[in-house]
This record gives sequence, C-alpha cells and structure tokens, in this order.
Amino acid sequence: MSARAAIVVTGTEVLGGRVSDRNGPWLAERLRELGVDLAHVTIVGDRPADMLAALRWCASLEVSLIVTSGGLGPTADDLTATVVGGFCGRAMVLDVALEERIAAILAASRARWAHLSDEAIREANRKQAVVPAGATILEPVGTAPGLVVPPADGSEGPTVVVLPGPPRELQPLWEQATRTAAFGRAVHDATVYEQRTLRLFGLPESEIATTLREAQRAGVELEQIEVTTCVRSGELEVVTRYEPHSAAVAAALEAVIRERHADVIYSDDGTRVDEQVASLLVQQGLTVAVAESCTGGLVLGKLTDRPGASAFVRGGIVAYSDAVKEQLVGVAPKLIEEHGAVSEAVAVALADGARERIGADVGIGVTGVAGPDGGTPDKPVGLVWIALSGPGGRRLVRRTDQRGTRADVRERTVVVTLHLLRRLLLGAADTPAE
Amino acid sequence: MSARAAIVVTGTEVLGGRVSDRNGPWLAERLRELGVDLAHVTIVGDRPADMLAALRWCASLEVSLIVTSGGLGPTADDLTATVVGGFCGRAMVLDVALEERIAAILAASRARWAHLSDEAIREANRKQAVVPAGATILEPVGTAPGLVVPPADGSEGPTVVVLPGPPRELQPLWEQATRTAAFGRAVHDATVYEQRTLRLFGLPESEIATTLREAQRAGVELEQIEVTTCVRSGELEVVTRYEPHSAAVAAALEAVIRERHADVIYSDDGTRVDEQVASLLVQQGLTVAVAESCTGGLVLGKLTDRPGASAFVRGGIVAYSDAVKEQLVGVAPKLIEEHGAVSEAVAVALADGARERIGADVGIGVTGVAGPDGGTPDKPVGLVWIALSGPGGRRLVRRTDQRGTRADVRERTVVVTLHLLRRLLLGAADTPAE
Repeated sequence: MSARAAIVVTGTEVLGGRVSDRNGPWLAERLRELGVDLAHVTIVGDRPADMLAALRWCASLEVSLIVTSGGLGPTADDLTATVVGGFCGRAMVLDVALEERIAAILAASRARWAHLSDEAIREANRKQAVVPAGATILEPVGTAPGLVVPPADGSEGPTVVVLPGPPRELQPLWEQATRTAAFGRAVHDATVYEQRTLRLFGLPESEIATTLREAQRAGVELEQIEVTTCVRSGELEVVTRYEPHSAAVAAALEAVIRERHADVIYSDDGTRVDEQVASLLVQQGLTVAVAESCTGGLVLGKLTDRPGASAFVRGGIVAYSDAVKEQLVGVAPKLIEEHGAVSEAVAVALADGARERIGADVGIGVTGVAGPDGGTPDKPVGLVWIALSGPGGRRLVRRTDQRGTRADVRERTVVVTLHLLRRLLLGAADTPAE
Repeated sequence: MSARAAIVVTGTEVLGGRVSDRNGPWLAERLRELGVDLAHVTIVGDRPADMLAALRWCASLEVSLIVTSGGLGPTADDLTATVVGGFCGRAMVLDVALEERIAAILAASRARWAHLSDEAIREANRKQAVVPAGATILEPVGTAPGLVVPPADGSEGPTVVVLPGPPRELQPLWEQATRTAAFGRAVHDATVYEQRTLRLFGLPESEIATTLREAQRAGVELEQIEVTTCVRSGELEVVTRYEPHSAAVAAALEAVIRERHADVIYSDDGTRVDEQVASLLVQQGLTVAVAESCTGGLVLGKLTDRPGASAFVRGGIVAYSDAVKEQLVGVAPKLIEEHGAVSEAVAVALADGARERIGADVGIGVTGVAGPDGGTPDKPVGLVWIALSGPGGRRLVRRTDQRGTRADVRERTVVVTLHLLRRLLLGAADTPAE
C-alpha cells in the first residue's frame, strides 16, 4: 500500500458556501509533491458529530494521514482539537508552556485591540492551549498552534495533522508538520509519482478526447497512467501522472498530442500564461500600458498580480465611459459615433492611445459588452474586441464572443488578452512592423 | 428526521487543487434556501471506486439527497452517470431520443469546431446519452444532460441529482432538478430554517467571541441556535440559523451584538459593501473615478463587478509608475520627491486628480507597498494610503497596515477602500465640505 491521505476542511461558513476554501487545493498540491495519494477532500460544518463522522470515514478508507484545517480559533464553535483528540483516543490536557507562548504573542499585538481587556483576550485564547496528550505541537504563526496527533499507543489508525484555517497560518504550520517524526512515520510508504502538464489554448475538450482515443488506438497504453483534462476560460490543461516505470507511456501520449496540436500548446513546463508574458516583457525590455473598458481594470489587475510587475507595467486607463475614452485615451469622438464604443476601430484606438499617452512599448485596448444588459442584435452580450499595438506599428486585433455570466465574460476576456499579448511578444502580428 | 443532503464534487483536477470548486458553495446556498440541511461536501477524483465510496458514505449518514457535480463530459475519465447508476441499482441504457437531441445541439455549434469530423464529435458525445434506467433526464444546456436518479424500486436510499461540472450548465439544470417529482419526494421533510446575517467591519474575531460569552452569561440560550462567525479581509460576518420557534433567542443575541458594536455594523440585510456603495452612488446621483497604484486596477475591477456599474463608474487610471501619476493624474512631481510615492500627500493628490481629470463627483486615490519587495523600515510592505475626495472639498484619508501576501494586501486594500467610500457617502469626512 502506498501512502494515502484525506483532507477534512471544517467550518460552517465554508460548508455553507459563504467562504470559498483555499486550503484544500493548496494542501492537495503539497501532498502530490510528497508522493502521497489524496483520496478526497471533505468539507464539514462546525458540528462535532459531523467532524467525527468524517474522520471515521477517512479511517475506514485506510488512509494513513488526515489533514484538517480550521476550527482552532478562540470562539466556541472552534472544536477541532477536541474532536481529533477523541478520535485518536487521547485525553485533552492544558499545555501551560504553550499558554504562556500564546499570551506572549497576543501581548506583542496588544496595541491593535486596545479596547479589549487583557482578561477577555486571555480567556478567549486559553482554549487554544488545550491539546491532545502526546501530540506534537506546531508553533503558532497567528495565535493558533497546529498539532500532529498520532493514534493512541498500541492502536492502528491514521495520524492527524491539525492546522488553523487562515492560509497564512496554515501554510507555515504545514511545513513544520512535515518535518515531525510522527508525520514521517505516517507517510513512509509514499510512492514518488511523476507529473507532466501540457497547457493548450483555444482547443475544445471534445477534440482532446478524440486525441486520447487515437493515442489508445495507436497502441499507447493509457491504462498505465492517470490522465486528466480540464478546460477553463479557453485554456485546456492535460495532466499526466505516473509511476516512474510508466514514463515511456506518458512520453508516447505527449508525442501524439504534440503531433496533433503543436500550434496551440503554450506551456509544457508548468508555467502559466501570465508568468510567460511577464518573462517575455522583461527579457525583451518592453513596457506595457492598457486602456480597457468592459474588463474595468481586471486586465491591469492581472498584469500587476505578480511581484516585480512594476518592471514592465507602466499603468493604464479604465475607460468605462465614452468621455474617458475620448479625453484620457484620445479616441476620436467620430470613431465612437461611426462604429460604436464596442468596435474594432475603437479597440485599436484604445490600444494606440494607451501606448502613446502612457508612453509604453505595447498598448492594449479592450472594449466589449460584459452584460447582462447592454447587448443588441448586432453587438450581443459577450462580444469583445481586443487590440494590441506594438513597436513600429505592429498590431494584433481579435474579436471574441464569450458566453456565460458577466463574471465569465470579464474573466475570459482577461485570459484571451494575455494569450494575444504572448503571441505578439513571440512575433505574431496582423500588421507587421513598418 | 428533517431533510438532509450531501454534495459530491468529482474531478481529479478539482481534487488536485488545479481548479477551485465553485459548485459546492453555490449548491450549498441553494440547499439552505430550500431548508435542506447540508451534511458535508466531498471532493473526489475521477476514480469510480472513490466516487462510489463517497456515495456509500453519504448513504450511511442517512441523507435523503445527494447532489453530484462533474464527470459528465465526453472524455473517458467522465464516469459519474455509470457510477451513480450502479449505486442506485439501476441498469445503464442508451436513450436514443436524448442522443438525437444532443446531436442537434452539437450541430448548431458545429461551426466552432470546423476542423473535427462529425464522427469524432458524435462518438465523443454518444456516451452522454447512456443513462440509468428510470432516471429523470434534465435537458442539456451545454451538451451534458443532468439526471435525477431515485433509488431502485422497493429499496431505500438517497435520491441522486447528477449535474455537469461547468457552473453555467450546472445552475440551470439544478433549477430543472428541483421541479421534478423525484426531487420533491427526496426533500419533502425539509425544515424551513431562518437565517440572519450581521456584517461588521474592523472588529477582531476574539472580541466577537467575548460578546458571545457575555450574551450567554446574560441568559441568551445560544445552544438553541447555530451561530457562526467568520473573518475575511477585515470584514466579520455573524450568521445565526435557527428554527422559527427559536427566533426570540436569535433576536436577543442580535440585541447584545448591536449594543456592544453598533458603530461597526454595516449590514443586517444580507447586502455586501459593494452593493451598498453601488446603491448609495445611484441614490445620490454621484459618479466615481479612481487613481490607484499598488492595487493595479482591482479597486476599479471591484467597482465594475456588478451589472449597471456604468451608471456610476466614470473610469480610472492605474498609475503604476510615477510618470503616469504625474502626467495622467496630475500629481505634482514635487510631492513625490518630498513625500515619496507612498504617502498621504500623494494619495490625496491621486484622489483629487482622479476626480478632476476624469470629471467625477468622487475621486479615490490608493498608493501603497503591495510587496513582497519594495518595503523599507519607514514604509514597510503592507503600508497603504487611501484617500477619498468628494464634492465641495470633503475628504477622507486613512493609513492602513495590512499583513500577509501580496495578494492579501491588494485584496484587503480593495475592501477597506470600499468601506471608506461607503462612509464618505454616508456623510463621514475628515475635511467637511466647504
């Protein structure tokens, strides 16, 4: 049996959909890196009976490791440590030294909560120092300590890693947990899997399904490897995961995909399009500026997402109203009158204007109908024009027709814009440099 | 027994953390509206054995309804219908009429995939017409039909609603599912819960914990109701959920919270700050413009998130470089020289500049250090200045010190900015109107 794990995310606010879980996906990636197979992620509310049922289910699947997130805070609905202690057959004890360390942490940030009494803070956090006997304590990054709780002596069962819910606390505590002896014992059977990710842009999922069938017909033994495909905002990801002895099968599949879809593969090294665009801009010493309408700042938001963006992003204009398009970006009023604000001509004028007014090497113009209102038969919701204007008059202009909600249209337009920018930076152009 | 449900999300790409699940939270909200208690959300990969184990676990908890999402696509790893058929004890049959309907749908969007053969498309999608005998079919919105699968005749067990993974297909199919007779039978015991949400801004979670204890000491019988608290980007949400006969307990708790924290409660009717800001701007007939630096377009992105934003957003400038701050927003170079780009003076100049240059009633200026680089002892990572400039010289300026990653700093700054805008619109000002 290779090492297998399960993740239990606790929190009524997560279960109820009011907060989306960021810990499950993060922990899943970390487990994969360690070669630990993940059976499932289960989200339960702050009800001890449900939490315990989930832990017992994990145990029934014979996982050797359970990771929990959440439920370590100071409020009464934070019950994870107690439930896990019971599950592992361990008594709960007050760790006095830990209580002191938590008190010291609180004292340091005391000024933030000047309006609270010391007593209130101490009381609210004392419960965080009550832990299962025999657990390894992970030193708090916030005020909540994490725990690595092995099964009671002499009994079988999974080891439970108990982590706080806030990602900035969970992540460093996870690193601590992986260095403990109890964790090492729980995952000592881990198989090292290899994984390859191919990313393609602009290919429907049904076509990759055909390609997989073709590969199988051609003798590629797909049952030896795990292949998953997934589409999002026009990007298609094909991930293969395999034990080292099946590397040749994965390579054979990759060769078939490359043969059929060479023109749309944009990444085979794990990089995403925003990273690639950032690298290309830095390598080529180019700066970029944006004038965007329907995306309302999200293209700029994405370009400035990564550290170091100030090396290549000059800035931009969110030209939501026609007046801003004209006055700040310099779009000729006549163009808007003749073609409408959502048009090829205006997209090009936005790109040129962004480039010139902001003094960047590359200008990006985006104009479209994000919806749900504002569509017409000629210009339906989802119609977006994207123009790029590069050095020496090089241009790339595309019309895209997005489906879905306002949020979908905006998000997908950002993705398409980044892919067009990537292509321009790699030399593509409708109008070549003069 | 009141009606209880579980959600099973399938997909190796979701389990592995490469795609975050949007369906679990959405379905959780819908179940709550119907008064169906949600036991858990479980995410499993595209492995039939794991999917079946999850379904069996749900059944062991005596839920009357299971909702699955994903695994209905054309690729070989899409296996949900078959697994659910087996789980419910129903044979799989080809529904010829459904196959024809799917073919017609595909023909309509045929032009999109001009490079694929008809045969390849038909083959890839035929499997989508093989369904459990006796299931109610939910008409496809994409190409994948949904299913409502009751337990085999004469046997006990949950009814399974099988939905496709893409949210724009899942959501309308869910609505269809709720109107079927089989669904009605599965949830006929639903209890109608009531729910109240209070939202507070700028209060630490430990203080609400103290308030809950105080309420209990004062005789509020909290064990009769479900109270969850949750903090995100400085916003604290307190949700109470209760059966109608416990309404007085919930009201008593709310009174205690109102007494202690009246000044920081900003919502008691479910509205979020972005909705409130939008309503206030529309009611007051005011427009807004933004000049933002470290948030790189995200304040504008948030303000334009909601339909109808063009009624009050004029536009904005992402002034990432000093040159853009000076040339486009009109910040005096001397100000940047003397105070630095991250300073109160520059934030105010950005707000004033946005307002004047873009011709809006309210200008917003944001400048800070998002990190991870660029911090100094004087101006550490997380320091952000936010200024608002309203009609008649009214101003509101705040320094905030955010912790966490670059993404945290940017996201929280957006939230704080919206709250400051709300306060300005409600009449708060450091510098009153002249």
